[in-house]
Amino acid sequence: MSKPLILVTNDDGIVAPGIRVLVELAAELGEVVVVAPDSPQSGQGHAITIHDPLRLKKANIFPGIEAWECSGTPVDCVKLAKHVVLKDRPIALCVSGINHGTNASINIIYSGTLSAAMEASVENIRSIGFSLDDFSFDADFKPCKPWVRKIMEYTLARPFEHGNLLNVNIPKLAADKLRGIRICRQADARWVENFMEGHDPSGQPYYWLTGEFVNHDKGEDTDVWALHNGFISVVPSMHDLTNYKALSSLNDLESY
Amino acid sequence: MSKPLILVTNDDGIVAPGIRVLVELAAELGEVVVVAPDSPQSGQGHAITIHDPLRLKKANIFPGIEAWECSGTPVDCVKLAKHVVLKDRPIALCVSGINHGTNASINIIYSGTLSAAMEASVENIRSIGFSLDDFSFDADFKPCKPWVRKIMEYTLARPFEHGNLLNVNIPKLAADKLRGIRICRQADARWVENFMEGHDPSGQPYYWLTGEFVNHDKGEDTDVWALHNGFISVVPSMHDLTNYKALSSLNDLESY
Repeated sequence: MSKPLILVTNDDGIVAPGIRVLVELAAELGEVVVVAPDSPQSGQGHAITIHDPLRLKKANIFPGIEAWECSGTPVDCVKLAKHVVLKDRPIALCVSGINHGTNASINIIYSGTLSAAMEASVENIRSIGFSLDDFSFDADFKPCKPWVRKIMEYTLARPFEHGNLLNVNIPKLAADKLRGIRICRQADARWVENFMEGHDPSGQPYYWLTGEFVNHDKGEDTDVWALHNGFISVVPSMHDLTNYKALSSLNDLESY
Repeated sequence: MSKPLILVTNDDGIVAPGIRVLVELAAELGEVVVVAPDSPQSGQGHAITIHDPLRLKKANIFPGIEAWECSGTPVDCVKLAKHVVLKDRPIALCVSGINHGTNASINIIYSGTLSAAMEASVENIRSIGFSLDDFSFDADFKPCKPWVRKIMEYTLARPFEHGNLLNVNIPKLAADKLRGIRICRQADARWVENFMEGHDPSGQPYYWLTGEFVNHDKGEDTDVWALHNGFISVVPSMHDLTNYKALSSLNDLESY
């Protein structure tokens, strides 16, 4: 049997340490092709590049692995990977990350890491976004490696219909402190913004986004709860944003 | 009673004709403040600007209306509007658009117009993204004006808990051909990409995103069906991307 084809991408850029871990683990499970941004793309959400051409260059940074760096967003990387690099060969799994920093809760909508995975799921590809709750460049990915591999194996083994996009977040803990995997819903939390205001060298004002992540969701079935309690959170996620519960309550608008 | 505060934004940029229509209609219903991008931001999805400062400049382009142009993405505009321009005054409604071009179905995740509206909904603000199925700069917004106003009035009048984000798409039809409003789910359709390949003046290859929107969803309860049948589609949407149906099917991963 031929090895499954695994696409690896991220949003921190192709030289980030986190993607190296995914490439290494994916290579144990299948044939790996990497298409990742040539520069950091955090916070790019589901942005795509419409008004400019994209560049794609061979990157010889993972020994024995076909890798390309792309000038676009994480979502652009997935589109280019599927249609240009892989010429529509069937992709068994797309993994994105491991992100340096958590993408739990509402962060899924801002995250380039998760948006890349979501783009793969739109294309009917099993996909997983992985994030470690540690923003530092030299974050220690060693404790989470067996868990990341396990989740990839599980995803490759199961039928792809349900929950084919997984948002996986890993707490920053030593191996013996990681308590296992929890299947969760997305916590109803958000950022409370605060803009740093200043003046540039020519005296013009600027505003720089900053903020604090605030969780008022007390549920013990959420990804934020799981992370705070030593578990790796797995949230099955989707790109159908219809609020089905609200459909019937809006019927009176049709005759308003 | 004081007039409701209505925030107007878009992704086509503050000088696009579509936003002018929203400003005019919103001014009939409340106090309007505009914060919109200073350049076209189509396809920006939920991108936010993290690594660069943002600029905000007064724009005197809507007579009698406070307006600001922002160097960032549509989502940045909403964050700046709420926290800097409006200093956390309660916003009764955020309207985004009217986009030149449809944002039905999967386009909600790529669209800056809808991402701006979604950002407002994350902030617990009633919000509506409006899009007309006509990409041209001189699209005719006249036929849809009474409908856009009606949907804004309805949204301002109802309690805000359910379906507080609406994705509204309007077919390109004469006033007497518009058949009314349909409450819909998001069609399960997607883009089939195709990259235009070429070489730049220095001989380097480039790839330019193009594609075709393909809908295999035959349901008559979808936004794409409504548009094709002369109706204005209204899809209640949300930012909780949890795939609740898949939660139980993944329980075996916890012990895998």
